[in-house]
Amino acid sequence: MRVEVVAVGTELLLGQIADTNAQWLGEHLAANGLSSHFHQHVGDNHDRIVLALRTALARADAVIVCGGLGPTQDDITREAMASVMNVPLERDESLVGVMQEFFTRRGRAMPENNLRQADVPRGATVIAQTRGTAPGLVCPVGQKVAYLLPGVPDEMADMFERAVLPDLLERQRAAGETAVIASRVLRTWGSSESALAEALAERFEALEADGRVTIAFLASGIEGIKVRLTARGADGAAAGALLDAEEARVRAVIAERLGDIVFGVDEESMEVAVATRLRAAGLTLAVAESLTGGLIASRLVSVAGASHWFVGGVVSYASRVKFDLLGVPEGPVVSAESAGAMARGVAGALGSEVGLAVTGVAGPEPQDGEAPGTVFVGLHLDGAVTTTRLQLVGDRTRVRNYTTISALDVLRRALDRRAAAGNVVA
Amino acid sequence: MRVEVVAVGTELLLGQIADTNAQWLGEHLAANGLSSHFHQHVGDNHDRIVLALRTALARADAVIVCGGLGPTQDDITREAMASVMNVPLERDESLVGVMQEFFTRRGRAMPENNLRQADVPRGATVIAQTRGTAPGLVCPVGQKVAYLLPGVPDEMADMFERAVLPDLLERQRAAGETAVIASRVLRTWGSSESALAEALAERFEALEADGRVTIAFLASGIEGIKVRLTARGADGAAAGALLDAEEARVRAVIAERLGDIVFGVDEESMEVAVATRLRAAGLTLAVAESLTGGLIASRLVSVAGASHWFVGGVVSYASRVKFDLLGVPEGPVVSAESAGAMARGVAGALGSEVGLAVTGVAGPEPQDGEAPGTVFVGLHLDGAVTTTRLQLVGDRTRVRNYTTISALDVLRRALDRRAAAGNVVA
Repeated sequence: MRVEVVAVGTELLLGQIADTNAQWLGEHLAANGLSSHFHQHVGDNHDRIVLALRTALARADAVIVCGGLGPTQDDITREAMASVMNVPLERDESLVGVMQEFFTRRGRAMPENNLRQADVPRGATVIAQTRGTAPGLVCPVGQKVAYLLPGVPDEMADMFERAVLPDLLERQRAAGETAVIASRVLRTWGSSESALAEALAERFEALEADGRVTIAFLASGIEGIKVRLTARGADGAAAGALLDAEEARVRAVIAERLGDIVFGVDEESMEVAVATRLRAAGLTLAVAESLTGGLIASRLVSVAGASHWFVGGVVSYASRVKFDLLGVPEGPVVSAESAGAMARGVAGALGSEVGLAVTGVAGPEPQDGEAPGTVFVGLHLDGAVTTTRLQLVGDRTRVRNYTTISALDVLRRALDRRAAAGNVVA
Repeated sequence: MRVEVVAVGTELLLGQIADTNAQWLGEHLAANGLSSHFHQHVGDNHDRIVLALRTALARADAVIVCGGLGPTQDDITREAMASVMNVPLERDESLVGVMQEFFTRRGRAMPENNLRQADVPRGATVIAQTRGTAPGLVCPVGQKVAYLLPGVPDEMADMFERAVLPDLLERQRAAGETAVIASRVLRTWGSSESALAEALAERFEALEADGRVTIAFLASGIEGIKVRLTARGADGAAAGALLDAEEARVRAVIAERLGDIVFGVDEESMEVAVATRLRAAGLTLAVAESLTGGLIASRLVSVAGASHWFVGGVVSYASRVKFDLLGVPEGPVVSAESAGAMARGVAGALGSEVGLAVTGVAGPEPQDGEAPGTVFVGLHLDGAVTTTRLQLVGDRTRVRNYTTISALDVLRRALDRRAAAGNVVA
């Protein structure tokens, strides 16, 4: 199955927004053994969308179109698709009802032009919306197919996983293509991409020769450096077995050469890794943040069930808040002493067993004689306070993001050492 | 001049890296009045690159190709271009000398396969490298042209500005085109995309007829709904004048039909809009958050200079923290009373003039008898407390994100009303 992605939107051509949809789709198609040989971007212009769709349908078996399904006059993907199919648009009354209800629930009147979203090319079937109002469409074109999805990333992803992917996999089976491509991502924090590549160079070459499994490195900013293993097998079980064997080898090499840097697998983020360890240890956490200004707390709260182990936090952006609310001794606030006092103070003020704190210089200006990128992490655990000094590079946003995941990694490693030591409580 | 961008690289199709080159090029082409109607991504495969290049040359006057010029075996853009031009590759000995020197300067021996970068399709001219080793190529194809540039962003950008843009502008002049395209984005919060489109439908049609300015709508999730105005003028000043006039018209229509929903222009985010107003009013702010867990504070801290007006915040995730630290009366915490008490309490605890607070149900489970998506915003300003009830839809992440920008918008509107009333202080 050759799948082509067509992203519709003049804003893409003008470079006003990045096309994250094509990247996301490419990643998820590959992970499911579906090849995509081309992507296209096209503007909000009827004839050009028609040309892009015809080009894609000529060189691929299936086309995924993102964008141009909204209610406004410049949303014309439906019309262009109808031209390609050479059929009229017909209003789907059941869709009209669904949209009416969508607006009624919000206590708003439905604007007239919203009805355009209920127009369906004859012969197409609807993919129900669960988040917005624009329905998706499955449009048969001879033996081929085009899927029309909204451009809003979470609506697009939801429809892809719920309707498009199952249909593509069914067509793949029908076409007698059974090779399954499976991949697994080891997520790391605390090493450089080149150091990882160097440590795994031997495995990399051995796998190149073998050809069944590949290793790729993916620097993912605040999400760490990902090591992606991709295996091709006769079926899911065969591919999975190859991945299990290779993951074990790779983990052994990394542990020996670079230490405890693998914090998660696949979608397991650093905050989930921390959450799992806190629940296992039966500990509650509070955080105190200055330069991150709530980023650490917000990532922890993003984990469902956080209320079982997360008490809350204090964003002590002004120094006065550190002194008054957290009992930090007056003095330079960008210091190990301050970080430690913040950690102990927030645990006391919010009544948690564990306290995690960060203080530092996000930049662009230095502070307390420390250069931008200087960060201190304080950890209050089992009655003891430990501090860690970080020297980060980059602009304000990068320093704040890297501080967030680095501080969570300090907690993760401490909880692992504690578990290994058999939960000794001071 | 219609320019098409073709980005070469399997890693783009697999979604392993984002294609920032096409976005960058789209932005710079538009800024110079050069239209780009299509972008393509294609993998490292000879026949598919040939097909992508032929497709692009058929529908555009000029094609910019990024990537596939490196020294390794999977860098085959040169070969594909030679096939399209139907000419042989010839080794350019002067380029070999330049590369030798590049390696000698670094005290390294030049790998044999690096010589491939000195191969040039007969009839093509070279764009000298100033940063790496892969030279760019200008390849005439009949009356049209293809520019081959490296995929490394800064090498690509350097060659575009030094060689490609001047050549394109010269071809544009020769073709008698001199228009400049400029655009401006009005950022809104508090209305639906369809309501905006309906309010502006008349302008939309008038502009369609006129042809010099276009309006587009861009639903951007937590960043609100963007109204983009794009103007084509003889020069930058003419395009700017068209934008000024249309922005005034559009703002008037929106204000009359939908009220005070425009919070910023272009890159002005909601947190920047709030920051500007707080500094103008000389007020300091503290925030109390439950379901957002620090998202509001972290967005405020992302504004450079936040220390001038942002004191800090309390993430009162556990109810106990609301009662003990913020003095919220015991009882259901998902309520207008609780939101108001949190706002007053955090201003008192952190010593700020303004207090903003949110409490609500992110889901998936209901709380205090309220359904997921029920959110209360509390605002403490000039000694008075006001509360707002929101009913949001979507999953946990969406509810938390929409709560964040909605709460900031409540503050923005209150500060605007306050300024309009002449800074009356209770």
